[in-house]
Amino acid sequence: MYDVTKIRADFPILAREVNGKPLVYLDNGASAQKPQVVIDAVTRAYSQEYANVHRGLHYLSNLATEKYESTRGIIARFLNAASEDEIVFTSGTTEGINLVSYAWAAPRLEPGDEIVLSVMEHHANIVPWHFLRERQGVVLKWVEVDGKGDLDPQAVLDAIGPKTKLVAVTHMSNVLGTVVDVAAICRGARERGVPVLVDGSQAAVHMPVDVQAIGCDFYAVTGHKLYGPSGSGAIFIRRERQAEMRPFLGGGDMIREVGRDAVTWNDPPMKFEAGTPGIVQQIGLGVALQYLMDLGMANVAAHERVLRDYARDRLAGLNWLNVQGTSETKGAIFSFTLDGAAHAHDISTILDKRGIAVRAGTHCAMPLMAHLGISASCRASFGLYNTTEEVDALVSALELAHELFA
Amino acid sequence: MYDVTKIRADFPILAREVNGKPLVYLDNGASAQKPQVVIDAVTRAYSQEYANVHRGLHYLSNLATEKYESTRGIIARFLNAASEDEIVFTSGTTEGINLVSYAWAAPRLEPGDEIVLSVMEHHANIVPWHFLRERQGVVLKWVEVDGKGDLDPQAVLDAIGPKTKLVAVTHMSNVLGTVVDVAAICRGARERGVPVLVDGSQAAVHMPVDVQAIGCDFYAVTGHKLYGPSGSGAIFIRRERQAEMRPFLGGGDMIREVGRDAVTWNDPPMKFEAGTPGIVQQIGLGVALQYLMDLGMANVAAHERVLRDYARDRLAGLNWLNVQGTSETKGAIFSFTLDGAAHAHDISTILDKRGIAVRAGTHCAMPLMAHLGISASCRASFGLYNTTEEVDALVSALELAHELFA
Repeated sequence: MYDVTKIRADFPILAREVNGKPLVYLDNGASAQKPQVVIDAVTRAYSQEYANVHRGLHYLSNLATEKYESTRGIIARFLNAASEDEIVFTSGTTEGINLVSYAWAAPRLEPGDEIVLSVMEHHANIVPWHFLRERQGVVLKWVEVDGKGDLDPQAVLDAIGPKTKLVAVTHMSNVLGTVVDVAAICRGARERGVPVLVDGSQAAVHMPVDVQAIGCDFYAVTGHKLYGPSGSGAIFIRRERQAEMRPFLGGGDMIREVGRDAVTWNDPPMKFEAGTPGIVQQIGLGVALQYLMDLGMANVAAHERVLRDYARDRLAGLNWLNVQGTSETKGAIFSFTLDGAAHAHDISTILDKRGIAVRAGTHCAMPLMAHLGISASCRASFGLYNTTEEVDALVSALELAHELFA
Repeated sequence: MYDVTKIRADFPILAREVNGKPLVYLDNGASAQKPQVVIDAVTRAYSQEYANVHRGLHYLSNLATEKYESTRGIIARFLNAASEDEIVFTSGTTEGINLVSYAWAAPRLEPGDEIVLSVMEHHANIVPWHFLRERQGVVLKWVEVDGKGDLDPQAVLDAIGPKTKLVAVTHMSNVLGTVVDVAAICRGARERGVPVLVDGSQAAVHMPVDVQAIGCDFYAVTGHKLYGPSGSGAIFIRRERQAEMRPFLGGGDMIREVGRDAVTWNDPPMKFEAGTPGIVQQIGLGVALQYLMDLGMANVAAHERVLRDYARDRLAGLNWLNVQGTSETKGAIFSFTLDGAAHAHDISTILDKRGIAVRAGTHCAMPLMAHLGISASCRASFGLYNTTEEVDALVSALELAHELFA
C-alpha cells in the first residue's frame, strides 16, 4: 500500500514553509528532495565512517570502500544490469554522456559520420555531440516529435543510414514528459549494427528500468534526481562497448602502472573512474536507490500515473493554458504557457508567492523550444511524494496568475 | 591561540575508537576528516534549503544558488585570486587538471611539443599528460628531485626548451612532503613565455596560498583534502588562459544558445561548468574553507611545523626506519619503509590494530617510487587536528611492528 502521507514524512524539507505557505515542490524535473535515510547516511559517513577509498588498508578506509562499492551493486540491481562491472560511477548524467563522447565516440567517429538524436533531447545529450560536430566533422541528424510530443521509434530507425555510428535518445523528455519506446529503437538499431545511448535522467526516476530488456549500450542516470545526493550518478555501459573505449579522465585508480614513458590502464569499470571519487555522495545514492526499490518503482509509477491523470484533467479545464506535450503515456511532467503576455518567469514568481516551486525557462532543451515555437515555459514536474492536493494548489495559483495577467 | 584540543572537538569522528583504541588518523594526505560545521551545512542544505541551482526562480532555488555561488568568492579569498571569475568549480584536482589537459593543452599542443614535470608528481598530474603523449605525440620531460627530495626551481627552468608549452608541478609532494618554490618556477617560466600549472592538492591544506604572489596560470585544489565534502573542488585559472580554452564537459549551464547546427558558450567560469554541479558539496566546501580561514592558515602551518619537527626527531630515533624525503622545509608528511622483509601493507595492518590509520602503497606516485627504488611505503600524513601524542602513538606502534618483523 503506497501511503503518500507516510512517504512525505520521510522528506524533512516537505514540512517547511516558503513565503508563509506550505512548500509545494513541483520542480522534481530539475532535482528531487532527499529522504531522511539519505541525509542520515551522508551524516554518518562523514561523522563516523569517513576515509578515502581503495587506497588504504586501515579500518576506516576498508569500511568506506565497502560502503562505497556496495552502491555499484545496488545500481546494477536498480537498472537490472547483468553485472555490476557494467556500472561506471559518474558525477551525474552530464559526465556520463561526456564520458561516452570523449572515450567511445571521439576516437571512433570520422568526418561525415552521423549521430541520430531527437529534437527533444536535454542539452546534456546534445552539447557533447556538438563538440564532435565542431571538432571532427560529425553530422547530427535530428528526428522530430509529433504534435503530441511522441517520438515514433520507426522515425528514429529511418534516420539511421550507412554512416550512422550512434543513436542518442532520451527515455523520457524533461519538458514534455514523453516516454520513448527505447526498447524498439534499440532492437532496430541493433539489427542495423548501431549502438544506442539512452539518457535515463528522467525515466529512471519515474518507472522501473531494465537495461537488459531495453537492450541499450549506454544508460545514464543522475543521483540528484533519484532522491540521492548532488554530484552522484552512474552510467551503465555494456561490456562490449567498454572494450572499445579508451580512458576519459586520467589520474589515480584508473591506472595499473604509471612510468615516465608508458602507462597501462586498470580494468573496467575502474578504467573510467579517475581520482578520489564522490565517496559520500555515492554511498548516499545507494541508500536512495534502496529506498526507491523498497517502495517499488512500479508503485511509484502507479502513484505518479494518478497524479498525471488528475493534473491532466484539471489543467485541461483551464482554457487559457497551453500544455506542451499530450502524449497518452507521458510522465507527470507538465510544461505550459499562458495565453497573453505573461512571461513564464512572471508566472513562476506568482506561484512562488504561494509556496509552489516550478521551473521557468528553456529547461536545457533549446532545440525543443524552437520546435515548439516558444521562447520559454513553466514546468511543473511531479515526484513520488506529490499529492493531488498539490495539483489543486497549482491550479488555484495558476488561476490567480491568469487573473493578474488577463 | 591555536587550541588543538578545542579544534579536535570540532571533528566528531576523532572521538571514535578503531579496533578498541582511540582513532589516530594519520591518513590526511589521502583525505581529511570533516568538522561539525561542514557536516551541519550539508545536513541543512539537504533538509531545509535544497533545490537545483541557476535554473529556477523559486525561493529554494534562489537560496541554494546564493549559497552555492558564495563558495566561489570564498575560494577566491582562500587562494587570493584577483577575481572569483577565475575560480572554476570541479569535483576535485583530478577533474581540474583534466580540464586543463582537454580544454587548454589538447587543442594547442603539436607533436613534439613538451610538458615539463617533476618526478614526484601525483598520478593526477601525470596521467592527463600521458594522454597527450599517447594521443598526439607530446613529449614529457621529467625533472629529478635531489637526495633530500628537494626540487631545484632552476632545474625545472633548465628543462624548458623552445618546444615547452607547459610546466606542471606540485606545490607539495604527497609522498615526501617537499614544498616546491613554485613562485620561482612561475617567475622563470613566465620570462620564457611558458604557463605553469600547480597541483595544490596537498599544499593548500597546509599553508597559506596566494596565487597572485605565486604567479601561476592554473592552481588546482580538492575539497575532500581541505576538510570539505568529497566530490568538491576548484581550479584557479588565470583570465588570459581561460580566454585560450575551449569548453571541456558539454551540457546545461555552460552554453548560451543551443541550436541544431550551432552552439555558443557561456562566459567563463560557467563555460567550464556543465550540468547540475555538486551543489551541496560546494556549499560544504565553502564552510570548510571559512573554517580554515577562521583558524588562520598561518596558524595551521605553525601547528603542523611543530608536529613535523617532533615527528622528524622521534622517527630519527628509530635507526631501522628509512624516511623518504628529508627536505628541511617539508610538510608534516612522512613516507617510510622498515629495514628487513616487512611489507608496507603488513606494517599498516599492525598500526591499524592500534587504531592508527596510515596509508600503504605507491601513493599514486609510481614514477617517484621508481626513482626512490622502492615498491611501496607507509605514509603518515598529519593534519590540523593531530597532536604530538599521536606522534608518540605512531612511534610506539612502529616499535611493535619492528619487533614483530625483526
